[in-house]
Amino acid sequence: MTLAIGDSASTDKTITEADILMFAAVSTDTNPVHISAKAGAASIFKERIAHGMLSAGLISAVLGTKMPGPGTIYISQSLRFRAPVKIGDTVTATVEVIDISPQGWPTLRTTCWVGEKVVIDGEAVVIPPPVAVAMEKAA
Amino acid sequence: MTLAIGDSASTDKTITEADILMFAAVSTDTNPVHISAKAGAASIFKERIAHGMLSAGLISAVLGTKMPGPGTIYISQSLRFRAPVKIGDTVTATVEVIDISPQGWPTLRTTCWVGEKVVIDGEAVVIPPPVAVAMEKAA
Repeated sequence: MTLAIGDSASTDKTITEADILMFAAVSTDTNPVHISAKAGAASIFKERIAHGMLSAGLISAVLGTKMPGPGTIYISQSLRFRAPVKIGDTVTATVEVIDISPQGWPTLRTTCWVGEKVVIDGEAVVIPPPVAVAMEKAA
Repeated sequence: MTLAIGDSASTDKTITEADILMFAAVSTDTNPVHISAKAGAASIFKERIAHGMLSAGLISAVLGTKMPGPGTIYISQSLRFRAPVKIGDTVTATVEVIDISPQGWPTLRTTCWVGEKVVIDGEAVVIPPPVAVAMEKAA
């Protein structure tokens, strides 16, 4: 895949209670704002919210399965958590190429949305698969 | 909990194949470098690696369960993926308070290690629980 500035890709996922429980298990992040309806109700959000890193995982999914695609290696990611994601929300993660380094590593604007609302924004730098393969051959 | 610059906390987790499969399920990130032994062997890492966001989840766990602790709300996180995490590696996530804003929101240096090797570094900003409660009362 040849990348150009302006290229974009996205994926959607509806966040379920099961996702939150699985993410809590895999991360050991059992912060009660994610796990307990009581703690969620007492929070500023008035209900349980999903882990921010769970939605961030969708950015990783777009990068690693769509653009640049399978074999992509993560270099960096910044994340600003702008709004909560609640059970039943459908999160759309979008990545857009905003720069490409001389060695071919793209910088991407990474945004997660629930409807029209931005819930996460930030930027990623990755090594796309052809470069990763070239690095392997040079090793 | 009253936070002071220099305060730190950490957690450990051994990353298993089951963790990678669960993270792939919850994130939809089925990049073959995580899922396929064949793709892992063909990569620059010579074997399957864990999702970077899986180790990043341990940072969320320290913040949300230890320091600042239960009820913490994520504002931002930067992540530089410095080295791969492989199946069987034990990742230690450490957070250290490096600044505190006038309204009491800490900035933390966030680091994940495998033994002596840094695998992720970056910084987080969070709203600690007492402030979150104060915001709720003011709402």
